[in-house]
Amino acid sequence: MSKRALDVTREKSFPDWYQAVVRDGDMAETSPVRGCMIIKPWGWGVWERIQAELDQRIKDTGHDNCYFPLFIPMSFIAKEAEHVEGFAKEMAVVTHHRLKNVGGKLELDPTAKLEEPLIVRPTSETIIGDAFQRWVKSYRDLPLLVNQWANVVRWEMRTRLFLRTAEFLWQEGHTAHADRDDAMAETLKMLEVYREFAENVLAMPVIAGEKPANERFPGADNTYSIEAMMQDGKALQAGTSHYLGTHFAQAQNIQYQSAAGQLEYCHTTSWGVSTRLIGGVIMTHGDDDGLRLPPAIAPRQVVIVPMLRDKPEDAELKDYCIALEKELKAQGIRTLVDVKPTKSAEKRWGWVRRGAPVIVEIGGRDASGGNVTFMRRDKLRDGDKAISKTMSRAEFVAGAAALLADIQAQLFAEAKARLDANIISGIKTFDELADYFGQAEADDEGGAFKGWAEVAWSRPEGAELEAIADRLKAMKLTIRNAPMAQKAIDRPCLFTGGPAKEMVLIARAY
Amino acid sequence: MSKRALDVTREKSFPDWYQAVVRDGDMAETSPVRGCMIIKPWGWGVWERIQAELDQRIKDTGHDNCYFPLFIPMSFIAKEAEHVEGFAKEMAVVTHHRLKNVGGKLELDPTAKLEEPLIVRPTSETIIGDAFQRWVKSYRDLPLLVNQWANVVRWEMRTRLFLRTAEFLWQEGHTAHADRDDAMAETLKMLEVYREFAENVLAMPVIAGEKPANERFPGADNTYSIEAMMQDGKALQAGTSHYLGTHFAQAQNIQYQSAAGQLEYCHTTSWGVSTRLIGGVIMTHGDDDGLRLPPAIAPRQVVIVPMLRDKPEDAELKDYCIALEKELKAQGIRTLVDVKPTKSAEKRWGWVRRGAPVIVEIGGRDASGGNVTFMRRDKLRDGDKAISKTMSRAEFVAGAAALLADIQAQLFAEAKARLDANIISGIKTFDELADYFGQAEADDEGGAFKGWAEVAWSRPEGAELEAIADRLKAMKLTIRNAPMAQKAIDRPCLFTGGPAKEMVLIARAY
Repeated sequence: MSKRALDVTREKSFPDWYQAVVRDGDMAETSPVRGCMIIKPWGWGVWERIQAELDQRIKDTGHDNCYFPLFIPMSFIAKEAEHVEGFAKEMAVVTHHRLKNVGGKLELDPTAKLEEPLIVRPTSETIIGDAFQRWVKSYRDLPLLVNQWANVVRWEMRTRLFLRTAEFLWQEGHTAHADRDDAMAETLKMLEVYREFAENVLAMPVIAGEKPANERFPGADNTYSIEAMMQDGKALQAGTSHYLGTHFAQAQNIQYQSAAGQLEYCHTTSWGVSTRLIGGVIMTHGDDDGLRLPPAIAPRQVVIVPMLRDKPEDAELKDYCIALEKELKAQGIRTLVDVKPTKSAEKRWGWVRRGAPVIVEIGGRDASGGNVTFMRRDKLRDGDKAISKTMSRAEFVAGAAALLADIQAQLFAEAKARLDANIISGIKTFDELADYFGQAEADDEGGAFKGWAEVAWSRPEGAELEAIADRLKAMKLTIRNAPMAQKAIDRPCLFTGGPAKEMVLIARAY
Repeated sequence: MSKRALDVTREKSFPDWYQAVVRDGDMAETSPVRGCMIIKPWGWGVWERIQAELDQRIKDTGHDNCYFPLFIPMSFIAKEAEHVEGFAKEMAVVTHHRLKNVGGKLELDPTAKLEEPLIVRPTSETIIGDAFQRWVKSYRDLPLLVNQWANVVRWEMRTRLFLRTAEFLWQEGHTAHADRDDAMAETLKMLEVYREFAENVLAMPVIAGEKPANERFPGADNTYSIEAMMQDGKALQAGTSHYLGTHFAQAQNIQYQSAAGQLEYCHTTSWGVSTRLIGGVIMTHGDDDGLRLPPAIAPRQVVIVPMLRDKPEDAELKDYCIALEKELKAQGIRTLVDVKPTKSAEKRWGWVRRGAPVIVEIGGRDASGGNVTFMRRDKLRDGDKAISKTMSRAEFVAGAAALLADIQAQLFAEAKARLDANIISGIKTFDELADYFGQAEADDEGGAFKGWAEVAWSRPEGAELEAIADRLKAMKLTIRNAPMAQKAIDRPCLFTGGPAKEMVLIARAY
């Protein structure tokens, strides 16, 4: 097998490959705190781009950013727990506010025990709902549209960088509306914002749809998601949008006086995406040489490596590179000249692993000839050979923006073709489903690629739905969503044999 | 007394006035969680502008942003405590990771007690130091320059919105260097970044200088600060930059191999500013009508209020306002047309209280005449009368950027004149100092305006310094810093009578 920039391939072990991309791409690392990650500069740069792009969309749709406390009183959670079945209880609990030095050893100070424990927010529905209850008085205050960017903590037992960590970063939108129609319109609007953002910015094709009842957010009337297909065939839930009915409004007394003078409960929504998206980008676009970043979220879109030789000519070479950088920056292209004191081949492969969209290498001959030699990360190799191209500097500079746009489009097209080709629609019976997916391996990792099955179902509820979920679970499968774009239904329900109401997607998932 | 937009004046009660500005300016509110605040959209918008402006400066000086965990293992804090005298122990401690439902009541699950308690970061020196210890191997890895934007928690007993809250938001820079010179240059570079940022962006004049030994950050060799004068004469420490020597490097084993092959400890620095800056902006620029925001950090620089009358002409009026907004936005001016369904006079005074730099009111006559009527928030009144000015729309649009620049400059000039006029330099003895400041009121609030005293001192150390700090403390005074720009010293030390080494600033402070 040919030499690649990583020491493991996707085929050999997808989970190991993922870890290698995260590590060798300088994205993140595990921290000494269980389940928490350190996001390194390159990974953080990606998150900054994600934040900037999505924040603009959130503001353009009329939402204001706020900031609510990190801590939530336990009584708030208790109030919510009464209203919400399936309430998740794994969370970090603060019980003391002081340490004391006992004979040179730090210990909890028993005199500093909190009267009421505080919960590190796993999500902010309750603390924001409490503010809404104070802020909303009249129908004139509605809709109330807020968002926050924040860290949240959920005590996960089995963590994986970006995909599932105890602390993660996200945005959470929370809105209050006068009625169901307005709240539902908001829920679907944000689902569409997420779809457009995932596809146009992350170059990650997704299926937007509604989750089945058993996969709803606790307390939601309807939960919608965008689902992306990773290169191992698994689904990644990349964003959710919830219509919460009046459940939270009732639990927290969020009421308004209507134009007619009646006191009414608000209808609320919430929606969020997290640093998990970065995991999705890695597993959508990465290859056996490392990460491939869509230009829209690459912290540096063009990286210029001068082939320095510790000789007097180096100064001239650097000047040439800096002039090129300046021309690219003038077009708003995020550019870096890498002058670190390491070998240029090492630098080149470092940027390949980090997934910089365009890697330019300038040697003495390029500089004296007024040329630029570059590689596009999305089309790095022809067989085993890395492809580089040389053109005049003027031509390169003139075409750079179009080149980046093309890379963005190519990455999307490649992922879209994979998604489209791997949604199997011919499965009509549970036996066929079992045949297709087979038994999951013991640890659910590194199995052969399996796409998603699109099957018809009758949208069963209650115990019937539970039983179906259990049968699927035995094969490590879940219903991902019922796509918003529904095809004609030409068959009965795969599970019950009864008349089908819609098509749903079934897959293994992260 | 004339009617103002707030129901309390600075003169009557500065602390009450501050609360009123925060509340009526829609900046923040207290939350149900002790000591934590909710930052409302307008306040958050100010923080977003502060972040954007400062972040650019941090990046321009070569720093990379990262993200480190919220939690710190108690053992890290213990290790630091061994190396640091005066270690602060008031912090939020996580001891459990699960709640359980016992007969309908939520309780701590005793089976989910953490083996080692986790501390919610009060600052990240130790967790970042631990990463540095892994990241730094050779002199080639230095300097290592990182920054993070994060929430931190310090269990404060007496809190005030923005100025002192249990949870606050900040940036913390952490850097590692090969030697003292490089680390000290970094420390002073960031101090200068803060000074320039405070003065040019916040329009808040500051004195940059070095803190006396008793006011150093625990573990620092040198601590520098920028100090701003509030309108009650008190000093606000608005940013700090620390040279940490090799203390943290020794505690955490941050070592590098030098070019000569020796293993050496790094010299580290840290520096930060926080949401406290917003309190500084309020107390520097606010007046009895509310907040006055420097245009550089105003979420909306121009707010347009159409004087709607629920008549058919309203549509035309709105169109006129939207066209004006578009012309201003095309110049990059942050503009809003306020079409909320409330009375225009109410809206006008709402924007006065929020401190929007330019408030435009458009009535039918303005629209039909192609005019714009506006108020500048920095020069709102002539005596008791609010001043508005009318000019042609073309003239207003053409001059808008210059108008905003002038407001920014005026706010700075006003605050600078106050600072310059209120640093008293004639005080030569402790008795004169005591005479000038008098006894502090019982609760240190709302005393008559007192500026700062610039006095000569011999830079005493140890017990002598402690004794001086105690004498000052009895008058609720502290030494703020020794300004970087030192005047000639023409007198002996105010405290010891010995030869003076430098001038220091003494003041009451937040």
